[in-house]
Amino acid sequence: MITTPLSEQDTTLLDRAVALAQKGLFTTKPNPRVGCVIARKNKIIGEGWHVRAGQDHAEIAALTAANHDVRGADVFVSLEPCSHHGKTGPCASALIDAGVARVVISMLDPNPEVSGRGVEMLRQAGIEVLISDNPDQARMINSGFCLRMEKGRPLVRLKIAATLDGRTAASDGSSQWITGDSARKDVHTLRAMSCALITGIGTIRADNPRLNARVDSDVEQPLRVVVEGHHVVPPDAAIFNEAGRVLLVGPRSLPSRKGVPSGAEYLSFDSNHGKVDLEQLIKSLAGQGCNEVLVEAGPTLAGAFLSAGLVDEIWIYQSPDIIGEAGRGMFVMPGIKSIQEKMSFQLIDSRPVGGDVRSIYLPQEKGL
Amino acid sequence: MITTPLSEQDTTLLDRAVALAQKGLFTTKPNPRVGCVIARKNKIIGEGWHVRAGQDHAEIAALTAANHDVRGADVFVSLEPCSHHGKTGPCASALIDAGVARVVISMLDPNPEVSGRGVEMLRQAGIEVLISDNPDQARMINSGFCLRMEKGRPLVRLKIAATLDGRTAASDGSSQWITGDSARKDVHTLRAMSCALITGIGTIRADNPRLNARVDSDVEQPLRVVVEGHHVVPPDAAIFNEAGRVLLVGPRSLPSRKGVPSGAEYLSFDSNHGKVDLEQLIKSLAGQGCNEVLVEAGPTLAGAFLSAGLVDEIWIYQSPDIIGEAGRGMFVMPGIKSIQEKMSFQLIDSRPVGGDVRSIYLPQEKGL
Repeated sequence: MITTPLSEQDTTLLDRAVALAQKGLFTTKPNPRVGCVIARKNKIIGEGWHVRAGQDHAEIAALTAANHDVRGADVFVSLEPCSHHGKTGPCASALIDAGVARVVISMLDPNPEVSGRGVEMLRQAGIEVLISDNPDQARMINSGFCLRMEKGRPLVRLKIAATLDGRTAASDGSSQWITGDSARKDVHTLRAMSCALITGIGTIRADNPRLNARVDSDVEQPLRVVVEGHHVVPPDAAIFNEAGRVLLVGPRSLPSRKGVPSGAEYLSFDSNHGKVDLEQLIKSLAGQGCNEVLVEAGPTLAGAFLSAGLVDEIWIYQSPDIIGEAGRGMFVMPGIKSIQEKMSFQLIDSRPVGGDVRSIYLPQEKGL
Repeated sequence: MITTPLSEQDTTLLDRAVALAQKGLFTTKPNPRVGCVIARKNKIIGEGWHVRAGQDHAEIAALTAANHDVRGADVFVSLEPCSHHGKTGPCASALIDAGVARVVISMLDPNPEVSGRGVEMLRQAGIEVLISDNPDQARMINSGFCLRMEKGRPLVRLKIAATLDGRTAASDGSSQWITGDSARKDVHTLRAMSCALITGIGTIRADNPRLNARVDSDVEQPLRVVVEGHHVVPPDAAIFNEAGRVLLVGPRSLPSRKGVPSGAEYLSFDSNHGKVDLEQLIKSLAGQGCNEVLVEAGPTLAGAFLSAGLVDEIWIYQSPDIIGEAGRGMFVMPGIKSIQEKMSFQLIDSRPVGGDVRSIYLPQEKGL
C-alpha cells in the first residue's frame, strides 16, 4: 500500500501514539504494543494503549477515554487497526461506528494474512487513511512481534555480564556479582520485555536463579525455559517457586524425561549432536506466541545459539574489572580455530549503566 | 607557592601555550612538552614550542619568533621556565634579559630539586609572575614526566587489542588482525608518544613485530624493550632492522645472556619467581629518562604488570567480533581465584575508533 510523508502536526500526534504504545512494553505479550490518540483540530480528546491480551485494544481504550464523542475526529494509531474478531471485536468496525473522519497509522499489520484489511475496511466506509512513510519507531517497539509474523520466529536477544577481560565467572565458579545494581536492574527490564527467558541446566545448577522479571511496574511474567541434557532441573529449584510458566526442554536422543515437577511442562526436540536443536526450540516458542526471547546462559549454550546463527541482538554488560584468563569465558565456539573464522557483529549502541558499560551488537548480516 | 585564578584573557593565551606544547608530543622525550606565547596587550607577537631535546626550549623559540622585540610584553608558558644550565641556557635568564614585564605559567616544574626556582629568579628581577590555579591540562600532557620527577617512575600504559569476548588471538595463535586500520593507526600514535615500548619474548616469537612508531609526522622513536626468559630474541628478528635503541632484559637467575646482537643493549634484573622483576625494570627505565612507557605484550607479561600494580592506564581496543573461549585471553592473573578477588578499574573514556571501541581504564586507587 502507498505510504505518505506526514505533516508536522500528524507526525507529532502519531509520535504520541507510539509513546503510548511503549506503556504496554511489559504486559501486552503475546500481542503487539499499540498506542492510540484521538484528536479534533489537533487537540487530543482521547488516548489509550493496549495493556494486556484479552483487554481493550488501544483504539477502544482511546474511544472510551473520549467518551465515544469522536464524530469527525482524527485517529492516530501506531499499528493498523485490526479487522478480525479476536478476543475483542474488530477495531476498524469500532472506528467506523464511532464516525471518525480520518485515521493515520504508523505501519500496516505485519501479519501477512491480515495486513491491509483494516485499512481497506476503513476506506470502504469512506474514512480517509494515511500510512506513514516512516514506520521505524513503531516497528522497533514490536520488532519481535514483526519477526514472528513475517518469518515465524521470535527476536532472540543474548545477554551476557562479563568483566572487561571477557570473563563471566572466576576460576572457582563464583560470579555474583560481576556487574553492579544498575546493570542488574536494567536486565530485569529486558526480562520484563521478553515473552520467554532461556537458560541452560548448567546455570540452574550453578546459580539456582529465580529467572523472573523483578521490576517496579506491572509485568506479565515471561515463560521460563530451561534447556536440559543429561542433568535435569531438581524439583526444589528456585525457578519453580515463582509465578509464571516453566518449560523444560530436552533432546529426543535421551531417555524420556521422568519426574517433571507439577506445574512445569516438558517438551522434547530433535537432537543436534546430542543437544536440543535450538532452531526447533525457537520456532516452537514462536508457535507459542513468543515475540522476544532472552537467552541468559553459560558459555556453552550461549555459544550454541551464536554458532547456530540464531541471535538477533547481543547485549553485553561489561564491568570495569579483571579476573584473568583462568576465569570462565563468554562463549564456547568450537567452529572457530583461526582469526579468519571470527564471527563479526556491528556495535549499534554503547552507554554507561551505573559503573558498567552496556553495548548492543547486531549480527553484520541482520538489521533491527 | 601561591596560585591564582587567571583572567579570561590570560586563560585564553595560556591555553594557546598548552596547545603549542602538544606539538612536541612525539619528539621532546625525555624532556617535557612545553609551549610558549608572547603577547603585548593581548596580541600575540611570538610563539613557540620545545621540539626536541638539545634544541631550543619553548621560551627561546617564542623569543626568536618575536625577534626578541618583547620589552614590556607578557609571556605565557605551560611550564615554569627553567633556572638551570642544561643543554641550553636558563630560560628564566633569557626572559629577564629580554625585558618582559609579566610571566604567566600553568604549573611549577615538577622536579622537586628545581621547582619554584625559575619563578624566584623572575620575581627577583622585578618581573610579575602568576601561577595558574588550574594546572590540569598542562599536567595531563606531561603526566609521565611529572610522575618521573615526583615519584621516580614512568607512566605505564597497557595496550590490548581484543575481540568483544576478550580474546587476543584465535586458538591456532593467529591474531592479525583483531582490530581495524583506524585502531592500529591510533596505536602508532600511542607508540609515538611513548619513550619506551615493552613487549615479551613470546610476542617476538609469535608475531615478529617491528615495534616502532609509524606515524606521518616527525617522531623520536621510542626505546624498544623485550623481556626475555629462557628464550631470547633471535638475531634476525625484525625489531633489529628499525631505527632506534633496542634493550633486551632478562632475570639474573638465568645464565648470562650470550650473543647479544650488535646494536642492541642488554640489562639483567633481579628475578621474581624466575622472571624479571618488573618494578625494577620500570624504575630503571625512569632512570634512563623514560616518561611514558607502553606495554604491548601477551597475556602473561600483561597480567604480570597488572598483578604487580604497575599499570597506570589500560587502553583496550575492542573489535566487534567473537572468537570463543578457546582463543587466547587478555591477562594471566594467577592470584585471582574468586569473584571477590577481582581487580577493579575505573572507565574514564570510551569511544569508537573506526569499527572498534577504544576504552581507557585507570586503577581505582590512581588518578591521572
